Amino acid sequence: MYTEKIPDIIIGRLPIYLRALQRMSAQGMKTTSSQELGDYVGISAAQIRKDISQFGEFGKQGTGYSIPFLTDKLREILKVNRMWDVVIVGLGDMGHALARYGGFSERGFRVALLFDSDPATIGRKVGELVIEDVSQLVERVRVCKIKLAMVAVPAAAAQEVVDRLVEAGVRAILNYAPTVLSVPDNVHIQHIDPSTHLQRMTFYID
Amino acid sequence: MYTEKIPDIIIGRLPIYLRALQRMSAQGMKTTSSQELGDYVGISAAQIRKDISQFGEFGKQGTGYSIPFLTDKLREILKVNRMWDVVIVGLGDMGHALARYGGFSERGFRVALLFDSDPATIGRKVGELVIEDVSQLVERVRVCKIKLAMVAVPAAAAQEVVDRLVEAGVRAILNYAPTVLSVPDNVHIQHIDPSTHLQRMTFYID
Repeated sequence: MYTEKIPDIIIGRLPIYLRALQRMSAQGMKTTSSQELGDYVGISAAQIRKDISQFGEFGKQGTGYSIPFLTDKLREILKVNRMWDVVIVGLGDMGHALARYGGFSERGFRVALLFDSDPATIGRKVGELVIEDVSQLVERVRVCKIKLAMVAVPAAAAQEVVDRLVEAGVRAILNYAPTVLSVPDNVHIQHIDPSTHLQRMTFYID
Repeated sequence: MYTEKIPDIIIGRLPIYLRALQRMSAQGMKTTSSQELGDYVGISAAQIRKDISQFGEFGKQGTGYSIPFLTDKLREILKVNRMWDVVIVGLGDMGHALARYGGFSERGFRVALLFDSDPATIGRKVGELVIEDVSQLVERVRVCKIKLAMVAVPAAAAQEVVDRLVEAGVRAILNYAPTVLSVPDNVHIQHIDPSTHLQRMTFYID
């Protein structure tokens, strides 16, 4: 409902605030301030107040933010107050690491389907899930109405996989392949690229 | 030399511009404009001009940016006009995926040392490198003067590993463990967290 107005850069910070609030809550904290939250995530208090105020008045002058209340609001805004099924394509080292990653369920995600193209990999189990043949991807993803995917295939195979995911109705893709990918305007894509993160830090090293 | 003045949020965008320029170059392009580069990375042309102008006058009115020249300048600013050695701690699925990742060398990084705590893993080879005992980490990293690390150990072990890396002189850490970590002010840390990326996209899905 806010999609037209809120800059994407603000949307990108909300999951960071949400993660910090969930960790504060796990430490037994009940309330926080924009200053404290800012120190936690490395963003200024003024920026945090401005970002959060885009969505309503969620804090009180003097007493700050209720952590459970703000957590609920951010989960609602980001639509992770429900469980999203996610498909993983490519079960090499990275795909296996993602399939076994422990940090999804409490953040609103459940790995639901696994695909690979290698006959030696198809049919194997990862946890409770069986790795399926990527030739079945479009039909299976469409029937299961899955909207999110993580792609961990070699760079040369990534565009074809992404095309099939789009055809199957996927709307958001997290790409681990070291390559640029084209998607239609109504599909979102994010790239996970360790070199980019490392380069951001080398700037600061003498 | 710019460290005191330039906001970190701008530094964080430079590797994204650099990656795009390197891909444009690989496609045979010689020049680009802030508009074209902006379309490529999803950032406004005005923001790109403002970011780049923090470091000098690298473009020409009317003709835009020379891709080789701007690439060299960004590599120099980010200090990746040299090769940085990187240590990986934790050789589970994720660590293996990182050790074998093909996208490091052309971006300024070389995986130089691997460590694990599991006796069944220590002594195994990944490519040309032998996985070493994490008990040797401080001495080995210090002797090799390595300043960058990627941490892919379980969450419960991550703080102790980070403490040892800091003791060994590491100045920048890329953390894949799903947990918050404390580092001194002179050490930089970035977190790779697939849930945060997915949550940024669910906002847009109806």
